[in-house]
Amino acid sequence: MATLQDIGLAAAINIITALIFLIAFAFLRLQPFNDRVYFPKWYLKGLRTSPATSGAFVSKFINLDYRSYMKFLNWMPDALKMPEAELIDHAGLDSAVYLRIYLLGLKIFIPILFLTWAILVPVNWTNKTLELSKATYSDIDKLSISNIPLGSHRFYTHVIMAYAVTFWTCFSLKKEYETIANMRLHFLQSEKRRPDQFTVLVKNVPPDADESVSEAVEHFFLVNHPDNYLTHQVVLNANKLADLVEEKKSKQNWLDYYQNKYSRNQSKRPTMKTGFLGLWGEKVDAIQHHISEIEKLSNEIAEERKYVVNNPKAIMPAAFVSFKTRWGAAVCAQTQQARNPTLWLTEWAPEPRDVFWQNLAIPYVSLTIRKLLMAVAFFFLTFFFIIPIAFVQSLANIEGIEKAAPFLKPIIEIKTIKSFIQGFLPGIALKIFLILLPTILMMMSKFEGFLSISRLERRSASRYYLFNFVNVFLGSVIAGTVLEQLQTFLDQSVNKIPETIGVAIPMKATFFITYVMVDGWTGTAGEILRLKPLIIYHLKNFFLVKTEKDREEAMDPGSIGFNTGEPQIQLYFLIGLIYAVVTPFLTPFILVFFALAYVVYRHQIINVYNQEYESSAAFWPDVHGRIIAALMISQLLLMGLLSTKEAASSTPFLLALPVLTIGFHMYCKGRYEPAFIRYPLQEAMMKDTLERAREPNLNLKGYLQNAYIHPIFKSASSDSDDDYDDDDDDEASDQKWRKDNVLVPTKRQSRKNTPAPSKMSAGSSPALIEIQEKDKP
Amino acid sequence: MATLQDIGLAAAINIITALIFLIAFAFLRLQPFNDRVYFPKWYLKGLRTSPATSGAFVSKFINLDYRSYMKFLNWMPDALKMPEAELIDHAGLDSAVYLRIYLLGLKIFIPILFLTWAILVPVNWTNKTLELSKATYSDIDKLSISNIPLGSHRFYTHVIMAYAVTFWTCFSLKKEYETIANMRLHFLQSEKRRPDQFTVLVKNVPPDADESVSEAVEHFFLVNHPDNYLTHQVVLNANKLADLVEEKKSKQNWLDYYQNKYSRNQSKRPTMKTGFLGLWGEKVDAIQHHISEIEKLSNEIAEERKYVVNNPKAIMPAAFVSFKTRWGAAVCAQTQQARNPTLWLTEWAPEPRDVFWQNLAIPYVSLTIRKLLMAVAFFFLTFFFIIPIAFVQSLANIEGIEKAAPFLKPIIEIKTIKSFIQGFLPGIALKIFLILLPTILMMMSKFEGFLSISRLERRSASRYYLFNFVNVFLGSVIAGTVLEQLQTFLDQSVNKIPETIGVAIPMKATFFITYVMVDGWTGTAGEILRLKPLIIYHLKNFFLVKTEKDREEAMDPGSIGFNTGEPQIQLYFLIGLIYAVVTPFLTPFILVFFALAYVVYRHQIINVYNQEYESSAAFWPDVHGRIIAALMISQLLLMGLLSTKEAASSTPFLLALPVLTIGFHMYCKGRYEPAFIRYPLQEAMMKDTLERAREPNLNLKGYLQNAYIHPIFKSASSDSDDDYDDDDDDEASDQKWRKDNVLVPTKRQSRKNTPAPSKMSAGSSPALIEIQEKDKP
Repeated sequence: MATLQDIGLAAAINIITALIFLIAFAFLRLQPFNDRVYFPKWYLKGLRTSPATSGAFVSKFINLDYRSYMKFLNWMPDALKMPEAELIDHAGLDSAVYLRIYLLGLKIFIPILFLTWAILVPVNWTNKTLELSKATYSDIDKLSISNIPLGSHRFYTHVIMAYAVTFWTCFSLKKEYETIANMRLHFLQSEKRRPDQFTVLVKNVPPDADESVSEAVEHFFLVNHPDNYLTHQVVLNANKLADLVEEKKSKQNWLDYYQNKYSRNQSKRPTMKTGFLGLWGEKVDAIQHHISEIEKLSNEIAEERKYVVNNPKAIMPAAFVSFKTRWGAAVCAQTQQARNPTLWLTEWAPEPRDVFWQNLAIPYVSLTIRKLLMAVAFFFLTFFFIIPIAFVQSLANIEGIEKAAPFLKPIIEIKTIKSFIQGFLPGIALKIFLILLPTILMMMSKFEGFLSISRLERRSASRYYLFNFVNVFLGSVIAGTVLEQLQTFLDQSVNKIPETIGVAIPMKATFFITYVMVDGWTGTAGEILRLKPLIIYHLKNFFLVKTEKDREEAMDPGSIGFNTGEPQIQLYFLIGLIYAVVTPFLTPFILVFFALAYVVYRHQIINVYNQEYESSAAFWPDVHGRIIAALMISQLLLMGLLSTKEAASSTPFLLALPVLTIGFHMYCKGRYEPAFIRYPLQEAMMKDTLERAREPNLNLKGYLQNAYIHPIFKSASSDSDDDYDDDDDDEASDQKWRKDNVLVPTKRQSRKNTPAPSKMSAGSSPALIEIQEKDKP
Repeated sequence: MATLQDIGLAAAINIITALIFLIAFAFLRLQPFNDRVYFPKWYLKGLRTSPATSGAFVSKFINLDYRSYMKFLNWMPDALKMPEAELIDHAGLDSAVYLRIYLLGLKIFIPILFLTWAILVPVNWTNKTLELSKATYSDIDKLSISNIPLGSHRFYTHVIMAYAVTFWTCFSLKKEYETIANMRLHFLQSEKRRPDQFTVLVKNVPPDADESVSEAVEHFFLVNHPDNYLTHQVVLNANKLADLVEEKKSKQNWLDYYQNKYSRNQSKRPTMKTGFLGLWGEKVDAIQHHISEIEKLSNEIAEERKYVVNNPKAIMPAAFVSFKTRWGAAVCAQTQQARNPTLWLTEWAPEPRDVFWQNLAIPYVSLTIRKLLMAVAFFFLTFFFIIPIAFVQSLANIEGIEKAAPFLKPIIEIKTIKSFIQGFLPGIALKIFLILLPTILMMMSKFEGFLSISRLERRSASRYYLFNFVNVFLGSVIAGTVLEQLQTFLDQSVNKIPETIGVAIPMKATFFITYVMVDGWTGTAGEILRLKPLIIYHLKNFFLVKTEKDREEAMDPGSIGFNTGEPQIQLYFLIGLIYAVVTPFLTPFILVFFALAYVVYRHQIINVYNQEYESSAAFWPDVHGRIIAALMISQLLLMGLLSTKEAASSTPFLLALPVLTIGFHMYCKGRYEPAFIRYPLQEAMMKDTLERAREPNLNLKGYLQNAYIHPIFKSASSDSDDDYDDDDDDEASDQKWRKDNVLVPTKRQSRKNTPAPSKMSAGSSPALIEIQEKDKP
C-alpha cells in the first residue's frame, strides 16, 4: 500500500505535468498562427477572420505583445463567464447539458466530501486495528474502513453514511433531471422553426407494383392523415455517389499538394508512381495525372448523380413526410400507422445534419438479426478481446519480425534495440486496440442500423461504459486477465460476487487515486492543448493550403465526442460513489477532476468544438441511468464488504438501499423520461397556434421542400470546382433554404453566406466581445 | 423409480376417476333441475328459459327419457362442432383464443411426439448402461437419456433433437402469433360500434382552483384536440355507494331466507340475535329486523347517491373522453398530452364492463411505490411463504387447541381423533394458503392500481406462473423446502445451477407423469362436473329463491379464470418441453391433457362460462412469452444435464439455442406485439370512413353520453325493489343506452331486455340448435 508520501509524489508529478500543459496551451493559443487550432468555433460561426489579412508580417505568426503573456490563466475565468443561456445559443443545448454532467459531479461530491470527512474520518481514525495487526499499513489506510475492527458497532456509521450518500445522490439526480427536462422543453419551445419539427421519418414503405415509393407515401398519408399531411421527400441511395465525391476530394488534396510543391521548386515537376501507395508502377507527372483522374471522377460523379436522381431503383423505401402543423407531426411520430407493425414505421425525423443516411433502407427482419449479432459480438468483445490480442502478440515477437523482414535482422539483434522491442511490442497491440475501440464500437452501432448520429453516439457510449466497467474497473479491482475473472465469477456462488469485489475495494484505493490523477487531471489538461489537431493543422497548412477556403478545411475543430467522453466521466462517478463511504480520502481527487474538466471543457465548447448536431439533450436519460447503476453497484459492494467484517447486525440494514434506488429509478423514468422521447401535443399545439398568429401567410411547403435532401446533393452542387452544370432551380432553392435556416449550416458553407463581420457587430453580449478582444493579438 | 406397472396402475386409477366424473356429469347435466348449473351461458344469452314453465311436474326435475342416457359422451362432439367464427360470436374472442392455447399445445407436441419416439427411443433403448450398472432401474428409464453411457457420441442425437424441438416450437409459436394478431385485428375491424372504440381514459387530471375537473377536461381537449374532441364523462368515487348496495343485497338475501323459512313453517316466526354472527345479543324477529335494516340502508344509499352526484369532492381526477372518430381516439390514446408526463395520462378506455372502478384515482407517485411494494411482497411471498405457514402449523397443534378451547379436550383426547388431527392439521394451513393464493395475487394486482379487470387477471397470471415455477416445478425437482433451495442457489456458482437442476430432471420423470395424470386428467374431468357451483346453486335455490329473477341470480356461471387457468397450462408446456428430449415417454401424457382439456373447456365456454369482459385476446403476448421462457429453461437444463454426462464435444453446440430463441422472441415482439397494444391509424381511419358512408346521420354524442357511468348507477336505478325515486331522464337514457349496446349487457339485466325466444328462433346455425335440442328434456 502506498503511503501518503507516495501519493504526494504522484500528485506532484501529475500537477506539474498538468501545469506544463496549461502553460504550453497559454503560450500557444496566443500565437496568431495557431488561431485556427484554438478558436475554430468562432471561425465556423463567421465571427472571426484569419489574422493574415492585416498587420506586420511577423505579427501574423507570433504574438509580440508581452503583456498578454502575463495573465496566462486568464482563459479560465473567461470560460466561466459566459452565462448558460448564451452558451446554449452559442453551442447548442447538447453542449450546455453535457457540461452540466461535470457540474452534477461537483454538486454530488462536495456535500459528500464534507459529510464523510466530518463523520467518517474521525470514526475510522480513532481505531487501532491496523496498529495492532502486524500487516504493513499507511496513513491512508488508517482513514479508511480497513481500520475498523471486525464486528465493531462503528459499522453502523458507515451504513448511515451509505444512506446519506444515496439520498443526496438521488436528490441531486432528481433535481438535475427536472432541470434538464425543463431546459429541453423550453429549448424546443423557444427554438426557431426547424424542419424536423414538422417532419417524420417513415421507414419500411411496402413495395407496390403499381405505385412508386413517392406515390405510395403520398397516398398513404393523404388517406390516413388527411387534415395534416403536407409534403414528403423520398430518400435516395447516394452512398456510392458520396464515396465518389469523397475520392475526388482526396485526389484534389493530392493535386494541391503537388501544385504547392511545384510552385515552391519550379525547377522540377513532381512525379509519382501509379501503383499501390506510390511504391511501384509507372512513373508519371503527378500534376497531370491527378488532373486527369479528377476529371474522370467528375464525369463519373455526374453520371452517378443522374442515375440516382432518375432511376427508381435508387429510391429507398423510406421517406421524410412533412405535416402542416407540429401537432400533425407529433401525432404521426407517436402512433402506429399500419396494420402490420413492421411497415410504415414512423419516428421523429432527426435534424437534417443528424441524419445517418447510409442506414435508411435496412428492412425490419434484418434489424433484429443485426441487433442480436451485435449483442453477441459485444459480449465476446468485452470478455474475450484479450484472445486475439494475445495471438497478435505471440506473432509479433522478435523471431516473427526476423522471419518476415530478414533485412532488419542486423538492427534488431543490437541488444538495446532488442530489449526495447521485447518490452514494447506486447503492449502495443493492446494499446492499438484500445485506441481503436471507440471506432469499433461506433462501427458496431452503425451496423445495428440506427438512423441518427446522436443515436449512434449514445449506443456507442453505453457499450463503451460497459467495456470500461468490466475491463478497467473490475479488471483493476480483481487481478488477473478478464477471462480468468469471468471464470471466477461463473464458478462463484451468486452472493459471493459482491463479497469478492467488495473485499478488494479498500485495497485498491491508492491505485484509483493514481488513476484519477493520471487520466483525470493530466489527461484533461492535455485535452486543452490539442496536440494532435495542432500538428495536423500545421502539416496541412504547409502542404495543402492554397486559399482561405483550404485553410478553413484544414481546421479540425472536433466535437465533444459523447461516445468516449461520457463513459469516462461515468467511471469517475462510479469510483467516487464506491469510495465515498469506504475510503473518504479519495473523494477530493475526484472533485479536482470534475472542477478542472468543467473549466477545460467549457472553454473548449465555447472556443473549439464544432457542434455536429443538436439532439436537445436526448442523452440525459442514459447519463442518469448510468449514475443510478453506479450507485447500486456501490451499495452492493459495500454490502459485500461489510458482510466480511462480521458486522452481521448492521449489514442487513443496507438491503433496503438497492430496492429504494430501483424505486427511485422507476419513478424518474416514468416522471421525466417521456420528455426526452415524445413530444407532448400540448406543446406542439401551443407552438402551432403562436406561429399561426405571428405568420399567417407562411409558405411552409416551400420551407420544407428541400430540407431533407441528401447532403451530397447540397455540397456537390455548390462545390467551388464544379465540373458539371447543375439545375439552376435546384441551386436557387437550395440557397434559399440555407438562408432561411440559419440553425442548420453545413460546415463548409458557413463562410459563404455570412459576410466576415466587423469586430463590434459580432457578439451582442459583453462577455463575447471580451473574449474576442482578449484573443486578438 | 417407478416401473411401467406402477405408472400403468396410476394411469388406470386416474382414468377410472376421470371416467366417473365424466359419467356423473353426463347424468347430472340431463336433469332439468341442474339445467342452470350446466347451461347458464344460454340463460344469460336469453336463449333458454327455465324448464319450470311447462310440462309434467316430475319432468321439471328429473329427466325420464332413457334414450338421452344412452349417448352419455355426446357432449364431446357437440362441443367440437361449433365453428370458431361462431364461437367468437357466441363467447367472445378472448374465449376462442384461450382455447387455442390448448390447440397450440397439441400442435407443438404431436410432431415432437412422433419425432422423439421415432428417433430418440431407439437411440436410448439400445444401450446397456443401466443393465451394466448396479442401480435399480425400470423400463421407463431405459427409454430416457439416463440409458446413454457417459461421454457417448449418441448425445449428438439429443442435441439435434433439441434443435428440432426449438425450431418446431418457434415455428408453431410464430404461426400462432400471426394468426391471433390477425384474428384480433379482424375482430376489432368487424366488431360493431362499441363505446371504447371512441373513448380514451384520462388519468391524473391536474387540480385547478378555478375550474372543476369536468371543465378542465373539456377545455384541455378542446384546445389540444380541437377537430376530434366530442364529449367526456367524469369518474365519480362511488366505492362507498357500491359497498352500501352490496350490504343491502346481502341483507335482502337474509330477508328472503327468513321469509322462505316462515312461509314453509307458518307456526313460528323466525328469530335471530343481533350480535356478532348471530351468536349473541338481543333476540329479535328476523323478518322485521331485516326489513327495517334494509329500509335504513336504502335511505343511506339515497343520501350517498345524492352526495356523490352533487358533491365536487366525489369527482375523481379522471375522465372518459370520447372523440368524434376512432382516429381521434387512437391518436389521443397513443400520444403524450401534457408537458408534465405524469399529468393527463391517456390510455385506451377498457370496455365498460372491464373497467375496474376502484383504481381510477390513484396518483402517479403512489403508483410507483405500490408497484415496488408489490414486487418486494411477491418476492417474499414466493420464497418465504412457508415461514408463516410453519408458524401457524406450530400454533395449531393439539396443545394449542386444548388451551384455546378447553371444553374440546375430552373429544380431542380420543386416540383416533387425536392422531387424525395430528396428521391432518399440518397440511391444512398449506392447503388453505394454496387455495387462497390466486385471491391473494389478485388483491396484490388490485393494490398495484391496474384499471381493467383484464389487466388485473394478466398480472395475477404471470405472478401465479412464477410462483408455480418456483414452488411447484423447482420445488418438486429439488427436494427440500423452498427456503433451502434459495440458499442452495445463492451458495452455488452461477453455471452450476442448470447442472444441479438438469441432473435431477430425468429422475423426476415419473413424478411429473403422475402429476400430469392427477392434476391434468382427473382435475380437468372434475372441472366439467362443477361440483361446487352445483351444490351452492341447489343450496341457494332451496333457501333464497322466490322469483325467477332470484333463480337467475343464484346461477353462478363462473368464467374462464385466466389468472389461474393459463399458468396451469403453462406448467404443462414447461414440463412437456423439458422432457421432450430427456424422457420422450412423458410426451403422450401431456398430449392427453391438452386434448381432454381442449374438449372440456370448449364445452364449458360454449355452455357455462359467462364472459366478463372482452379484451380482444390482449393476453396473447404473455402466453407467447411464457412458452418462450419454458423453451429457454428447457435448453438451459439440457445443457446442464449434458455437461454432467461428459459429453464435452456435443454440449457446446447447444449454446447457440438460447441466443437464437432470444432473437426469435425479439423478432416476434417487434413484429406482432404492437398489434396487441396499439391501434393502427390505418384501421381506425378505414372503419371511420366506412361508418361515415353507412350512417351519415349517426348521433354519436347521444350514443356515448352514458356509456361510462359507474355500474352502481345503472344497476341501482333499475333494481326491482327501488326504494327511492330516480331521475326519469337518467333512467330513460340508461335504458336507451343499453338497448343500443347489445354487446355490453350486464348480467342481471339480460333477461329483461331480451324476450324469451322460441326454440327455433334461437340459434341461427344448425350446431346451436342441435345442442339445445339435445339438452332439452
